Amino acid sequence: MKKGLLITVEGPDGAGKSTQLDFIKSYFEEKGTNPIFLREPGSTKIGEEIREILLSDKNKEMGNKTEMFLYAAARAQLVEQVIKPELEKGSVVVCDRYIDSSLAYQGYGRNLGSMVEEINMHAIDSVMPDLTIFLSLDIETGLKRASKSSGGNKDRIEQESNDFHQRVLMGYEEIAKKYSNRIIKVNATLSIEEVSNVIKEHLDKVFL
Amino acid sequence: MKKGLLITVEGPDGAGKSTQLDFIKSYFEEKGTNPIFLREPGSTKIGEEIREILLSDKNKEMGNKTEMFLYAAARAQLVEQVIKPELEKGSVVVCDRYIDSSLAYQGYGRNLGSMVEEINMHAIDSVMPDLTIFLSLDIETGLKRASKSSGGNKDRIEQESNDFHQRVLMGYEEIAKKYSNRIIKVNATLSIEEVSNVIKEHLDKVFL
Repeated sequence: MKKGLLITVEGPDGAGKSTQLDFIKSYFEEKGTNPIFLREPGSTKIGEEIREILLSDKNKEMGNKTEMFLYAAARAQLVEQVIKPELEKGSVVVCDRYIDSSLAYQGYGRNLGSMVEEINMHAIDSVMPDLTIFLSLDIETGLKRASKSSGGNKDRIEQESNDFHQRVLMGYEEIAKKYSNRIIKVNATLSIEEVSNVIKEHLDKVFL
Repeated sequence: MKKGLLITVEGPDGAGKSTQLDFIKSYFEEKGTNPIFLREPGSTKIGEEIREILLSDKNKEMGNKTEMFLYAAARAQLVEQVIKPELEKGSVVVCDRYIDSSLAYQGYGRNLGSMVEEINMHAIDSVMPDLTIFLSLDIETGLKRASKSSGGNKDRIEQESNDFHQRVLMGYEEIAKKYSNRIIKVNATLSIEEVSNVIKEHLDKVFL
């Protein structure tokens, strides 16, 4: 059934995801391919409505499970409405955050553990990424960049405590080890060009 | 930990839930108790925002799993923010729809089956109702009343096909059999007074 390619980009805020997503775009354009670029949560009308609830800093009373279910809802909608049909058509789909973000942020950051994977396996309906690029930051750099990110307009998640962000970073490292078959870990403290070069090597392997 | 009483009222639209909720209110008032009355999805700020997404007739492209996760999100928020703290304080909490609505509407109506219960057991965090009043309609009356309900302003769920509403009605009957220890089934085609009398009998048993 699946003919396309699903590539996801993961990592904490401040790791340089946007910059490397631009690089991935130009990589595929040079190859004459126009990938579908998506962001999570969002990229559908319903998903963007869910995103507003999730990221509004007026919703500080949100429970951890509520947060987990809202991310799962937005993801399920994106998979059903966009990702599955595009993969069936043979498209290259590039997603800024996907299931690993929930494993890291809700599983480790919110301490919800394995429940998050169980719930999200239903949400993604077996559509796992072919390749996940994990932009890894050591904790010190991660916290420094996270505290700078978005300037004065931090969303509800960005406003979380250092302890939370530290658990997320550690979570990502664990997840990258556990799913080393599909996740490549790139040291995001390298220069932009160096990071792009590592990504290029791996894209060359999956996109023939 | 739990000291209060959780009573839920279930059934298809048109079964007379609002009327009987009014009766339950007056029953407890006569006993000198002020129950907390809640509705699902909603009754928290976040839950009401989720409700808008769920019921908007502009969201017809919503996937079945998205719908299931959104109901679970609203329910998780209600349990954590209101139901658990109120039960711990010893309150009587009366909820217009709860987990059984998801089992009937998403499990049977949307054909999502046992996944719905698995997901919702996480959402309610083991807070099961002490008593569930199920207002039961035969399929013919149910479809007739459903097609009348809300006049010209039907929400996204009310606008669903007769087949969907028929599966929901059948689902409720199955659930009432499966959980007969806590669900009492009341024939909602009886007169308002007759239905109220049956409800009164059962309230007398749980509220001493």
